[in-house]
Amino acid sequence: MEQTAARRRRSGGQAGNRRRTDPAAIRQMPWRLPVNTDRPTEPLTAEGIAAIHDGAMRILEEIGIEFLNDEALALFRQAGMTVEGTNVRMGRDFVAEMLARAPGSFTLTPRNPERRLTLGERHILFGNVSSPPNYWSLETGKVTGTRARCRELLTLTQAFNCIHFAGGYPVEPVDIHASVRHLDVLFDKLTLTDKVVHAYSLGAERVEDVMEMVRIAGGLSHAEFAATPRMYTNINSTSPLKHDAPMIDGCLRMIRRGQAAIVAPFTLAGAMAPVTMAGAVAQSIAEALSAIALFQYVVPGCPCGIGTFTSNVDMKSGAPAFGTPEYMRATQMTGQMARHYGLPLRASGVCAANVPDGQAMWETSNSLWSAVQAGVNLVYHAAGWLEGGLIASPEKFVMDCEVIQMIQRYFEPDLVATGPDEIALEAIREVGPEGHFFGIDHTQARYERAFHQPFVSDWRNFEAWEKDGAVWTAERAQRVCKRILATFEPPPMAEGIRDELAAFVARRKEEGGAPTDF
Amino acid sequence: MEQTAARRRRSGGQAGNRRRTDPAAIRQMPWRLPVNTDRPTEPLTAEGIAAIHDGAMRILEEIGIEFLNDEALALFRQAGMTVEGTNVRMGRDFVAEMLARAPGSFTLTPRNPERRLTLGERHILFGNVSSPPNYWSLETGKVTGTRARCRELLTLTQAFNCIHFAGGYPVEPVDIHASVRHLDVLFDKLTLTDKVVHAYSLGAERVEDVMEMVRIAGGLSHAEFAATPRMYTNINSTSPLKHDAPMIDGCLRMIRRGQAAIVAPFTLAGAMAPVTMAGAVAQSIAEALSAIALFQYVVPGCPCGIGTFTSNVDMKSGAPAFGTPEYMRATQMTGQMARHYGLPLRASGVCAANVPDGQAMWETSNSLWSAVQAGVNLVYHAAGWLEGGLIASPEKFVMDCEVIQMIQRYFEPDLVATGPDEIALEAIREVGPEGHFFGIDHTQARYERAFHQPFVSDWRNFEAWEKDGAVWTAERAQRVCKRILATFEPPPMAEGIRDELAAFVARRKEEGGAPTDF
Repeated sequence: MEQTAARRRRSGGQAGNRRRTDPAAIRQMPWRLPVNTDRPTEPLTAEGIAAIHDGAMRILEEIGIEFLNDEALALFRQAGMTVEGTNVRMGRDFVAEMLARAPGSFTLTPRNPERRLTLGERHILFGNVSSPPNYWSLETGKVTGTRARCRELLTLTQAFNCIHFAGGYPVEPVDIHASVRHLDVLFDKLTLTDKVVHAYSLGAERVEDVMEMVRIAGGLSHAEFAATPRMYTNINSTSPLKHDAPMIDGCLRMIRRGQAAIVAPFTLAGAMAPVTMAGAVAQSIAEALSAIALFQYVVPGCPCGIGTFTSNVDMKSGAPAFGTPEYMRATQMTGQMARHYGLPLRASGVCAANVPDGQAMWETSNSLWSAVQAGVNLVYHAAGWLEGGLIASPEKFVMDCEVIQMIQRYFEPDLVATGPDEIALEAIREVGPEGHFFGIDHTQARYERAFHQPFVSDWRNFEAWEKDGAVWTAERAQRVCKRILATFEPPPMAEGIRDELAAFVARRKEEGGAPTDF
Repeated sequence: MEQTAARRRRSGGQAGNRRRTDPAAIRQMPWRLPVNTDRPTEPLTAEGIAAIHDGAMRILEEIGIEFLNDEALALFRQAGMTVEGTNVRMGRDFVAEMLARAPGSFTLTPRNPERRLTLGERHILFGNVSSPPNYWSLETGKVTGTRARCRELLTLTQAFNCIHFAGGYPVEPVDIHASVRHLDVLFDKLTLTDKVVHAYSLGAERVEDVMEMVRIAGGLSHAEFAATPRMYTNINSTSPLKHDAPMIDGCLRMIRRGQAAIVAPFTLAGAMAPVTMAGAVAQSIAEALSAIALFQYVVPGCPCGIGTFTSNVDMKSGAPAFGTPEYMRATQMTGQMARHYGLPLRASGVCAANVPDGQAMWETSNSLWSAVQAGVNLVYHAAGWLEGGLIASPEKFVMDCEVIQMIQRYFEPDLVATGPDEIALEAIREVGPEGHFFGIDHTQARYERAFHQPFVSDWRNFEAWEKDGAVWTAERAQRVCKRILATFEPPPMAEGIRDELAAFVARRKEEGGAPTDF
């Protein structure tokens, strides 16, 4: 407890953080964990849920999933499943028994405990774009990711209160050798942000290194680290019907040390999954549940999430499409299934667009609102994603945060309150048919906090906007980004902890980092 | 019947229309009336609905509404209401009795009966932007509306199958004198489109002229015209708490000839209505119901719709904001109230943005999806709106139609079907863990119609997109627009009817048109 209090003092807490980054750069809403109060959109009837469940279970029972991981195969054998080569078939009773062990929600506590997240309980939380190899900005055009660009996007991740967690690398810093990339990026991530972080499941050394760095950054003993989830990993299956060795290995390492694992199959209907959306969802469910069942067998009650990344391809070109009606419905359907299984749900903020223009925003809006409609708990890639995840963009990051902040505001209870003060009969009587509401007390007492305030939207009329340079949204977002970067101060970290982190990175680099033959 | 059949032959029907405009210009979904299968989003509890209802009723009972229309005042007096000067107070029992007369849904049958609309019954229908004084395109920048620009936007209104009705003038043709403007625009509208049209309630002569032109265009006798709704008018109240003379007069003229009236107060919270959203909604409901009660008193069972246009202002500048979280929740709340009263609901597709960029599309997406969430039946301004309704833009029109078409696709039942063919267990078994779904029969039998196909979104990767000119969305929309305009052929109209319309316009112009002192 004392240690926690000390950390809180060092970090300056939430107020300190707001003082440092907000006033100079942008006016934004405070940090909070939004609660999704909307009843989910449910395209599936009870029979539809049963049909997808039965399809998923028959995939697991009759067709099986390939686990290219010897330990997993041994564990499944030990659990009494049918293992033939790498193919594992499991009965629906086993799956149900294992899912019953999984918690419906859990917390993730980063080095700043005020940034603790609850995954589940109707929360909807947002994270930065993860893993694009490329970067695009108005200034640079499309270029490869570098450490500097990665640091820039981590800065945005920290600066925006509506971004709750630092997911994967916001852009791949390809100027850092793959063997030590995780060390440098995690050092940057843990010093530039104080939010929940993630480890890629790309080999034992990487996962262990990242867990160790998170432990050091939190000033935690090994026991303290393992006592509650501090971080998570997210894996994709190799659709169709396959889990790769390092992915399963990484999850097993994480859950055995009390950390969280999210399993998000990437099932593109018509390519790696059936062309029909219910089939693509059923396959995705089967792939995800097979791994989650394994994790619950190994560590009963370990924190797991199920992910959805079901979209469709352009049937003319085979290119993936994102933020489509098909994507929205698949997300909603998976939401119903996740609630059926009692698992927290992860989805994404996505688009196919190559630049932060109109298409980018209608596709992203579609995907973010479908996350709301689906009751999603964790929205990956929610800010900064372009070109189907191949590009990270700072302008897009800022624009997405505007949409996310609107979703956050959308869920504030005062917006739909209907007490006598909100019905405001006396105010209406006072103003009468000839008056104006702006000047009255009822308005004056509320106007500063009554409405959402944007940081990149321009609500001025055309003439005022034109006189000020006729700046389109992407360029305004660029300006916001520059303001943030110019005034950003990283969250505080004790000198000793920073030194310890740096020493760990140096030592592991000397040792050669991690193998790159994965 | 014979006459209808003859008209159908002349018009070429739906297939004929598709043949003429679709293949040359864009690939789009067919004409249909989408059914909103989603359960509405309901931010209000039963107590919340009761509180807003009670607030609205107390406004009507205690504060009253100003009716600046002598006939309305006389009618209210006759009905036993309390009339003092122009102030009318009415009891909730009277309102309830009148609302019980209003149909929950009704049809609107334009000159092409295949374009018949059903307003209500969970349909969600979309119309063009209406009434901006200005026009903006990439080519022209911001310029005033003209007849040529109005004709261009009417062409788009007809060309897109996802646009169901031709609302008000898509841009005000200020190069036509106000006294005869309605004659020229309605001639254009009735010859360039075969969809449901609208009359502005701006004085007796205009309303009567437009009804007469719709009658002529339909080849209808006076009795046939009045036998079923062929068209509608839409009025705003003059918030707070006031109905202007010509608005009420226009509605009375319409309903007495069997046509439809929609009452959509424009209540900007913090300006013309309370700063609290529940208060703004309660006031809007009171204003709308006061007029609808009058119409049901005059013509029991006449087709009426209730509209919502409740948004907030920017409290720094007083400028109206659109597509905000506040706007979304107000729309959803009004949806609950409209269902409570059993009235079809009208809302809008709106934005504050000045150009068709990212902001324009997130604001528009927010407003269109809130219409979906609110169970809205008629979405005004759904395509082409910019600058809070002060600008109409052809590029924005095309971009909005892409979003609308996605909403249409979103509601297709096959998307969420869960029969054995959709679960596709045998396809998953056939492909197995090493295969790809594209080549198999299950995919090949479905791929041409499996997924939404866009007409302006570009799903190619960055390199292909860049090689082709790196064209952003607004410019691609411009190209789509040009293709449509280049290949458009107006829907057929018998020579005799066209001549009769032209003769009516000529005669009414000779008579001086309509007074302009309204």
